[in-house]
Amino acid sequence: MSFVPCEPSSHFPLQNLPYGVFSRRGAHDRRICTAIGSYVLDLKSLSDAGCFSQPVAAAFQQGTLNDFMALGRTHWSEARQTLTQLLSQESPRLRDDSDLRSKALLHQADVEMHLPASIGDYTDFYLSREHATNCGTMLRGADNALSPNWLSLPVAYHGRSSSIVVSGTPVHRPRGQVLKDGKDGKQPVLDRCQILDFELEMGAFVGRGNGMGTSTDVNSAGDHIFGLVLLNDWSARDIQKWEMAPLGPFNSKNWASSISPWVVTMDALAPFRCPAPSQAPQALPYLQETDRHSFDICLEAEILPAGADEPTRVTLSNLKHLYWTLPQMVAHHTVGGCNLRPGDLLGTGTISCNTADRQGLGCLLEKTWNGTKPVKLADGTERLYLENGDTVILRGYCQGPGYRVGFGECTGQVLPTRTSMDV
Amino acid sequence: MSFVPCEPSSHFPLQNLPYGVFSRRGAHDRRICTAIGSYVLDLKSLSDAGCFSQPVAAAFQQGTLNDFMALGRTHWSEARQTLTQLLSQESPRLRDDSDLRSKALLHQADVEMHLPASIGDYTDFYLSREHATNCGTMLRGADNALSPNWLSLPVAYHGRSSSIVVSGTPVHRPRGQVLKDGKDGKQPVLDRCQILDFELEMGAFVGRGNGMGTSTDVNSAGDHIFGLVLLNDWSARDIQKWEMAPLGPFNSKNWASSISPWVVTMDALAPFRCPAPSQAPQALPYLQETDRHSFDICLEAEILPAGADEPTRVTLSNLKHLYWTLPQMVAHHTVGGCNLRPGDLLGTGTISCNTADRQGLGCLLEKTWNGTKPVKLADGTERLYLENGDTVILRGYCQGPGYRVGFGECTGQVLPTRTSMDV
Ligand SMILES: [Ca+2]
Ligand SMILES: [Ca+2]
Ligand SMILES: [Mg+2]
Ligand SMILES: [Mg+2]
Ligand code: NI
Repeated sequence: MSFVPCEPSSHFPLQNLPYGVFSRRGAHDRRICTAIGSYVLDLKSLSDAGCFSQPVAAAFQQGTLNDFMALGRTHWSEARQTLTQLLSQESPRLRDDSDLRSKALLHQADVEMHLPASIGDYTDFYLSREHATNCGTMLRGADNALSPNWLSLPVAYHGRSSSIVVSGTPVHRPRGQVLKDGKDGKQPVLDRCQILDFELEMGAFVGRGNGMGTSTDVNSAGDHIFGLVLLNDWSARDIQKWEMAPLGPFNSKNWASSISPWVVTMDALAPFRCPAPSQAPQALPYLQETDRHSFDICLEAEILPAGADEPTRVTLSNLKHLYWTLPQMVAHHTVGGCNLRPGDLLGTGTISCNTADRQGLGCLLEKTWNGTKPVKLADGTERLYLENGDTVILRGYCQGPGYRVGFGECTGQVLPTRTSMDV
Repeated sequence: MSFVPCEPSSHFPLQNLPYGVFSRRGAHDRRICTAIGSYVLDLKSLSDAGCFSQPVAAAFQQGTLNDFMALGRTHWSEARQTLTQLLSQESPRLRDDSDLRSKALLHQADVEMHLPASIGDYTDFYLSREHATNCGTMLRGADNALSPNWLSLPVAYHGRSSSIVVSGTPVHRPRGQVLKDGKDGKQPVLDRCQILDFELEMGAFVGRGNGMGTSTDVNSAGDHIFGLVLLNDWSARDIQKWEMAPLGPFNSKNWASSISPWVVTMDALAPFRCPAPSQAPQALPYLQETDRHSFDICLEAEILPAGADEPTRVTLSNLKHLYWTLPQMVAHHTVGGCNLRPGDLLGTGTISCNTADRQGLGCLLEKTWNGTKPVKLADGTERLYLENGDTVILRGYCQGPGYRVGFGECTGQVLPTRTSMDV
């Protein structure tokens, strides 16, 4: 227990201690923090006060988590121990130092959260068999739903890092080339995206990297992951359909991706390890894990229309369903010698599971089955895809006995295309 | 003319003044420089000496070109004028200051060149109609060579920025999943790449960027390009073939890309403007240029086997053949609101032209027509694809009357896969 009050429903009990980057409202100075209850704890102030030893103390002086991410597991665990001690009810160091407490312990409402790291490269995977099967069925029919390589390797593509924004940042509906019916059949035209979707994903931040020309073994790959965030991979389906062959998604995805501000560490997630789906056919040896596991993380997506009183949950899924695991993602990414760097972000791809009530589908493309089955919202309206003014809210948490280790929220409102981009 | 001696065949006469980043051999300090003849001119020393006004003076204090790139055309031209003046035979400022000259003017042999910028995002396009047609013909036959979208938009995919290295850096042959004949037909296995290729490309460094949710008009897009480099997009064709559908190239490309150290500015290239190929069908309005042009840049690729006396030229091509132009690349990349940042790199894709003697083909896949027509090298050996020990050398220059504006070289030797990555 912490001396900082914390409800059982809070995402940020002493068992969590996620990392983020904040600034005080109105200030420019970006600082590393952790979350406890409804507070953030300023780790630069604690570092200034001598609460950490090197190299952690120096890493907590920075305005991004990259240096801390680069330190590796031993130092991450050491910092976690120190923080657990500092915040515990029994420890006087912070509890009884009202000066330090007033400097370092701030209401979450008084701070602005930023991207936790400088993201060098962003990769998006396609790890959910249910998602890949659903998309493939809509595109190619049930008999050829999975591409021939899908069960042999974790399919991925390189994404755009410049347009990754933190939760709360609104995004503008993109425009792009789409095929439209014209007098001579289908013609490419420039139009505002008409089929705007979210994708419920998680993102793994790379901790320790690897050098160019080297690989990370699948059985040590877990140690290279610093922690996880919620990720909404906004997707313009009409643009995607026209541009995607032969080199993959480009403008359909590169205009915005949103992540939650809190990086929940693998140490905090360890109690929620669970079996991962078994794989058949067996993966190639470089993807075979001696201790194959996943994490039991409840995930949900809600849509809140502009002006509506309450959001409507459209997805209830779980990370544990993913066919390919996080270590397999790292092992495959590096198998040819590609270097990962601290702060790189690896998206899981849309996290879907198949349930009779269609609650487990992680994007509207699947949920509305290619725009044929409308979703009813609490305000009485229906959606096939996102409308201007809609806010998408992703949430995730692990349920422990009497406490939750949570990710908070990843939200983003869809604003109209800017008028400077009229078509 | 400059007081620094410069042969007519030099790539770096006073008309060029490319930008790069160097360190003195053995030193760590990275500094911005320009090239003149066989010298580099240290622009930090000149900035210290008060040769530039702000904000250029401050930008030249940095260890990468990103800040300078962000300043925009007016400041780039102003810096170029100052440098032209400082290096001209008639100007005493540097010519007669032997202290400053000995501090700032260094033999290229005494310095090590580095990446010119911190590359936030790297995008690779597919602008050459000849290249796309050749690849498509090998893959799908002549009747469906171009994908349906190819003539409507400049096809592109996001690449990997972490593994971009500067000329001279050796690269290790990657390994990866490939399909191999087995007893039950084709099976995926992990193997060293057997079909290793280079791609002769150029890269455009983004200067001024654009904000998220905004686009850059095709007619001002040229002003957002700072300059060009040579780019070798190393490609593992066997890995590419198996992984590529449905989301595009990934491990086949992300293990290494090499660029030349000197960024030749658009001001230096302006005298070599030439018409770009006309487009039919007409592009959509957002891709139509009022002053459509390209640049006449001779490009060549050579292969130097380990221990051989001389390289063999395998490609002789020219940037001017590209169907899509640099401004069209920027306009399409940003049409949906994707933000480009100073220092982002946009690759053109392989630059091929079709000539009867097959000299214009920009990669071995095309040159050997999918591994069926061996290339003879000067040392008597033949190549279908690259062998360990081979060095690929790209060169590029614009020929003026009595002078050349050149890019120098982009070289890289293929080393064996590391033994830690035995398969
Ligand atoms: Ca995705
Ligand atoms: Ca390429
Ligand atoms: Mg995205
Ligand atoms: Mg490459
Ligand atoms: Ni200015």
